[in-house]
Amino acid sequence: MMIIKIGGGESINIRGIIADLAEVSDPFVIIHGANALRDQIAQELKKPKKVITSLSGYSSVFSDQQAIDLLMMAYAGLRNKRIVELCQQYGINAVGLSGLDGKMIQGRRNTGIRIKENEKLKIVRDYSGKPQSINLELLQLLIKNHYIPVLCIPIIDQENFAINSENDDIVNVLHEALKSEMIFQFIEAPGFLLDSANPDSLVKNITAAEIQRLEEQVEGRMKRKMLALRKLCENANPTVFIADGRVEHPFKEALAGKGTVIK
Amino acid sequence: MMIIKIGGGESINIRGIIADLAEVSDPFVIIHGANALRDQIAQELKKPKKVITSLSGYSSVFSDQQAIDLLMMAYAGLRNKRIVELCQQYGINAVGLSGLDGKMIQGRRNTGIRIKENEKLKIVRDYSGKPQSINLELLQLLIKNHYIPVLCIPIIDQENFAINSENDDIVNVLHEALKSEMIFQFIEAPGFLLDSANPDSLVKNITAAEIQRLEEQVEGRMKRKMLALRKLCENANPTVFIADGRVEHPFKEALAGKGTVIK
Repeated sequence: MMIIKIGGGESINIRGIIADLAEVSDPFVIIHGANALRDQIAQELKKPKKVITSLSGYSSVFSDQQAIDLLMMAYAGLRNKRIVELCQQYGINAVGLSGLDGKMIQGRRNTGIRIKENEKLKIVRDYSGKPQSINLELLQLLIKNHYIPVLCIPIIDQENFAINSENDDIVNVLHEALKSEMIFQFIEAPGFLLDSANPDSLVKNITAAEIQRLEEQVEGRMKRKMLALRKLCENANPTVFIADGRVEHPFKEALAGKGTVIK
Repeated sequence: MMIIKIGGGESINIRGIIADLAEVSDPFVIIHGANALRDQIAQELKKPKKVITSLSGYSSVFSDQQAIDLLMMAYAGLRNKRIVELCQQYGINAVGLSGLDGKMIQGRRNTGIRIKENEKLKIVRDYSGKPQSINLELLQLLIKNHYIPVLCIPIIDQENFAINSENDDIVNVLHEALKSEMIFQFIEAPGFLLDSANPDSLVKNITAAEIQRLEEQVEGRMKRKMLALRKLCENANPTVFIADGRVEHPFKEALAGKGTVIK
C-alpha cells in the first residue's frame, strides 16, 4: 500500500505522476492539494484569502464559509475531478472523494484563535481543524474492489461541518490507518532542502532519527512539515520519498532515489 | 429504491428535501443539478455561457473545456459537497460522486453540430453527450454498505473525457439499472403545468398513456422533458412525482400527492 501526496503548486506535473502510477500494480491512495488553483479562483472571483495573526504572532488563513465554498470549488471540484479524469484516461479506476463523503476524513474543529482587533482582545473561530481518523471501512471497500481513492479537503468535523485542514496531517492519519510501506510527497523542489533558496542543499537521505535534529534547523512552515514527517515515521516504519513533482517522471524518479529518501 | 432528482434552480429548498429524506428508511440515490449556481459563478468569473444555434434552428449551450471546468466547480464541487455536508448533518451517510468517479455514469460524446459562421458551414464539437449506462456494481456496493450516493455531472465518455449531459437522461439510465419504484423530481413549479405561466394549470394525475398526448401539447424544453418522462415510464412501471422543490417539506408534500403524480 502506498500513499501519494500531490502538492497543490501550479508547476506540479500531475499528468506525469498519473502516467507513472498507471504502471504500478500495488494499490495506492492519492491525496492532493490545490492551493495555487484556489488562490487563482479566489483572485478571479475577487474573494481574496483572509489572513489573521494570533496574539502569539502566528499567521494563518481564516477559513470562513466563503473560504470553504472556494475549497469545495477548487479542491473537491475542479482539481479532484480533473485528476480523476486523467486517472481514467490512463486506466486507473479512480474515485474522487472529499473528507465529507462517507465521512472519509474526520476531524476536530479548532476552538478559536485569540487576536487583537482595534486594540481589543477577541476570539475568532473559523472552519478549520485537525484530522483525527479516517473511514477505513469505506477506504478498504473501494480498494478491495479495485478502485483508487483520490482524496482532498474539506474534511468533516465532530458536528458534521466542512472544515479546512492541512494535507500533511491528513497523510498522517491515513498512514496510521493504512500502515503504508511507502509514502510519496510531490513538491515544487528537488526534495528536502536545508536551505530552501538553494537547490544544491538537497538532503538525499535522512534517517528517522535525524528528523528531529533537522526540525530544529528549519523555520516556519518547513518546521511544521518536519514535525508532521517525524510523526509519520514513528508509525510502522514507512519509507518516505520527498520528491520533485515538476519533472517528466515524478514517481519513477522518486522511486529511483532522485529526491530525499527517509527511512 | 427511490431516485431523487433535485433541480438546479436557485429557489429549491435543498435543506427541506434532505430533512424530509432523513426520516425515510428505504435506500435512495440523489441526482442534483446546479445550473443557477453555475451561471452565477460563470458571471462572477466573467466566463459567460456560449450558446450556439444549429442549422436546424436548435439552440444549445456549447460545452468547451472552460465550461467543463465550471461544471466541476459548481456541480461536483460546491453544490455536491454542500449537499453531502447537509446530508451528514441530518444523519444521512452520503457519498458524493460525479459521473467520472469509478465511471459511475458512462456516456457517448455527441459527434458535432452543424452551424453557420460568417456565411460558412462548419461542424463544431463540444464536450457534451448522452448517458448510456451506469456502474451498477459500484452503486450497489455503496448502497449495500448503507451509503447514499449523491450524483452529478460531468459524466464520462467512451474515451474517458468529462462531458456535460442532461439530468433527465441520467435519471433514465439510473432507473433502467435500478428499476426504482418511485422517482421524485423537485422543480421550481407546483408540478407539471399545462401552461407554464399559470400555476393553476397544474395537472394532478397523469397516466403513462397520457404522456404522449401531453408531449404533443407542449413546446421547447418542456417537450424534451416529456419525452424523457415517457421513456422513464416505459420501464418497470415506476410512480413519478413531479413536485414543488420550493416548499417547506418538498418530499413529504410530493408523497402526499400535492404535485403531479404519474402512474
